[in-house]
Amino acid sequence: MFPDVDVAVVGAGLAGLTAARELRAAGRSVVVFEARDRVGGRTWTRPLGDGGFPDHGAFLDLGGQWIGPGQERIAALAADLGIATFPTYAEGETRYSIAGRDRTEMPEADAALQELDRLAASLPAEEPWTAPDAAGWDAQTLQSWLSSRVTDPASRALLRLLTTGIFTVEPDELSLLHVLAYIRSAGSLTALVQDAQEQRFAGGAQTVSERIAAELGPETVRLGRPVLAIDQSLHGAAVRTGHNGIGGGVTARCVIVAVPIAITDRIAFSPPLPVPRAQLHQRVAPGATIKAHAVYDRPFWREHGSNGRSLTDDGPVSVTFDNSPPSGTPGILVGFVEGNEARRLGEFDEDARRQAVLDCFTASFGPQAAEPREYTEVNWSAEEWTRGCYGSNLPPGAWTQYGAALREPCGRVHWAGAETSAVWMNYMEGAVRSGERAAAQVLASLAPTRST
Amino acid sequence: MFPDVDVAVVGAGLAGLTAARELRAAGRSVVVFEARDRVGGRTWTRPLGDGGFPDHGAFLDLGGQWIGPGQERIAALAADLGIATFPTYAEGETRYSIAGRDRTEMPEADAALQELDRLAASLPAEEPWTAPDAAGWDAQTLQSWLSSRVTDPASRALLRLLTTGIFTVEPDELSLLHVLAYIRSAGSLTALVQDAQEQRFAGGAQTVSERIAAELGPETVRLGRPVLAIDQSLHGAAVRTGHNGIGGGVTARCVIVAVPIAITDRIAFSPPLPVPRAQLHQRVAPGATIKAHAVYDRPFWREHGSNGRSLTDDGPVSVTFDNSPPSGTPGILVGFVEGNEARRLGEFDEDARRQAVLDCFTASFGPQAAEPREYTEVNWSAEEWTRGCYGSNLPPGAWTQYGAALREPCGRVHWAGAETSAVWMNYMEGAVRSGERAAAQVLASLAPTRST
Repeated sequence: MFPDVDVAVVGAGLAGLTAARELRAAGRSVVVFEARDRVGGRTWTRPLGDGGFPDHGAFLDLGGQWIGPGQERIAALAADLGIATFPTYAEGETRYSIAGRDRTEMPEADAALQELDRLAASLPAEEPWTAPDAAGWDAQTLQSWLSSRVTDPASRALLRLLTTGIFTVEPDELSLLHVLAYIRSAGSLTALVQDAQEQRFAGGAQTVSERIAAELGPETVRLGRPVLAIDQSLHGAAVRTGHNGIGGGVTARCVIVAVPIAITDRIAFSPPLPVPRAQLHQRVAPGATIKAHAVYDRPFWREHGSNGRSLTDDGPVSVTFDNSPPSGTPGILVGFVEGNEARRLGEFDEDARRQAVLDCFTASFGPQAAEPREYTEVNWSAEEWTRGCYGSNLPPGAWTQYGAALREPCGRVHWAGAETSAVWMNYMEGAVRSGERAAAQVLASLAPTRST
Repeated sequence: MFPDVDVAVVGAGLAGLTAARELRAAGRSVVVFEARDRVGGRTWTRPLGDGGFPDHGAFLDLGGQWIGPGQERIAALAADLGIATFPTYAEGETRYSIAGRDRTEMPEADAALQELDRLAASLPAEEPWTAPDAAGWDAQTLQSWLSSRVTDPASRALLRLLTTGIFTVEPDELSLLHVLAYIRSAGSLTALVQDAQEQRFAGGAQTVSERIAAELGPETVRLGRPVLAIDQSLHGAAVRTGHNGIGGGVTARCVIVAVPIAITDRIAFSPPLPVPRAQLHQRVAPGATIKAHAVYDRPFWREHGSNGRSLTDDGPVSVTFDNSPPSGTPGILVGFVEGNEARRLGEFDEDARRQAVLDCFTASFGPQAAEPREYTEVNWSAEEWTRGCYGSNLPPGAWTQYGAALREPCGRVHWAGAETSAVWMNYMEGAVRSGERAAAQVLASLAPTRST
């Protein structure tokens, strides 16, 4: 068998496209298969302005949207592609309503957060499961750890909000070691809850993927091609795709799988994946979140001294931001429903869910919020080719037993995706880094053997 | 579309075959698709005696093998199929070596076990997640619960052995609520650790499935046919299979999926599965176990007063039984490697693993155990169409959020499998009950609407 290409990449999200771009730059032939009819994966931008409103250039980021300090690789990639950034709107007051309190200064919560930061800093970032205390941290849920330290109801409420805000699952689902590894991968809790929301991309976050795809060309990035099977042999790997019953695919020397772990088992691997990888897949679980946008003629909340931000446990929307374009027109509020609330609201009918979200916006920003001229939401758990956002989490006992399988190639198959990054795991930065790392792994494996 | 059959069943394990048998008996047309080239799923019997030894009728049960009191449906099914049972050999002493002790009487462990039994008895069996304290129990690992109650090292060692023996994962991986639901489903811990190993099937446990398959006939039970896709429409469901690149399948009015949840995502569902079901799949994780058999000319351990049983934490094999046929010839020892030890030994090469297992047999039963005339092992985590035994477990936070999705049909798709049974979950009894329950669900949905 003479392989058609050097490398086949599965998934045209940021990870897969970054890998493909690196491989192309290194002179390798590459093809990218994407199940959806668009690139970008969990970044997904919808232009506004087709409804007769003067919204030229305005857009909704339906998925991942922010970058911040320390996220160097995504920043460099965007700069390289000529994509500017702009600051998230931040002038004015944030509304807090946490167990009835209008502030976040809570000594018990602070102490717990500082301790989490301290423990996280002690972890080896690349292999958190090798920390001396890893087994003990991986044997308990975050909830167990918190409940022995925090008794003040408001502190508990705040810590729960921060947990669902970062992980989109509840404290009872998370291994403490996972929480620490996650904090470690970002640098600190401050990085996660403040810095990470600092900037946005002009034109929307999906633009990064679209520019790479345009560079690579439509012959390379093949949309609407879910990969059904990867058959490895001594000489290469056959990647089979399906599309409306019509088969296709390529043979390649290596494969990079850059899709969420939660949907990787939709691919039939031959030979079957080794046990540690297979059991890792059984344990990685994406979070649950619904991202809702309401579009108004103008950002009226700014007139009342609000920055559009809120953090509350009053209703299903726990976090909001001002998501207006730099011009301030139109005014856009974005709200996140996370964890159990996303599961609950996901079962509502469409009208009831919209009403529940707008009720939250109204509670935070006044009656003008009740009547947006447009309302859009995405339940990322329902997206067939993602099945949960923002990222994935590991339950107790998984990191210590299966962490080593996360980036370990299985023969010719290499793994990318934001979940696999030791730095900014689950973020766009992690996706880009994972693509770069997987490309480097593949290039090393493709390098001719030196005979000297 | 006029459906080819009333019901398509995916998976010819005990659950799927039981469902098919019930449906056939009710006059419905049915077809069963099985990915493997054999029926039985996690029951798998290999005859001995083809090696020149006088082992006529002897066999190895490579998978599930025992039934016990309270397991009424599998007992009735086997009796109906004319399959006899025989008692597991039990005369003589069991060897205990637990943290260096040769007994299991440990007050702290006893107290913990009694408390688990007491809490489990308080659960509603069908919907354990609705118990008043369910949220708190689901927020912690079994390990967290135990570590606050048990300090004696030997008690801890015993409780860990019992945990891996029942769940094939470690206490740090299990939601306490899952543990309680599991105990509740069997009736008690005593039922799990003693009664459940009482009897075996003449000819081996796979015989039950083989007899049903013979009744149904090869036109109905189609081997080597992994199901690739289930497409539901208003009028029926199209079940597509693949086999060496050759497509096939049927249209059906209903489908029963009776494969382990861990491999269900290999099927492409259209429309995609609803969110709760999809996120349930992401969280259900099978255990890890290697089942090893050593065959000797005779059961020499009996001559030394041993019943062939051991429970030890000295080495990778934690539990052994005398697995000889009723005649006592040949002598067969079976050993189980469970949880982290199964993961560790799974990475050994074949010779080293065999040696590690036989070293354990020798430690418990003397030097004669070192040289079996035959040695066989199955790492069930490596079985592509099972991916982990004995059954599956749920991590913290999953039962309370996704328990209701376990048996809830998704349109025309109904769910069977031992994991879905509220009674003897994960056991053959649970498999049979789940098949009966799914068949009843389907029959009800197929019943003509009464116009009176």
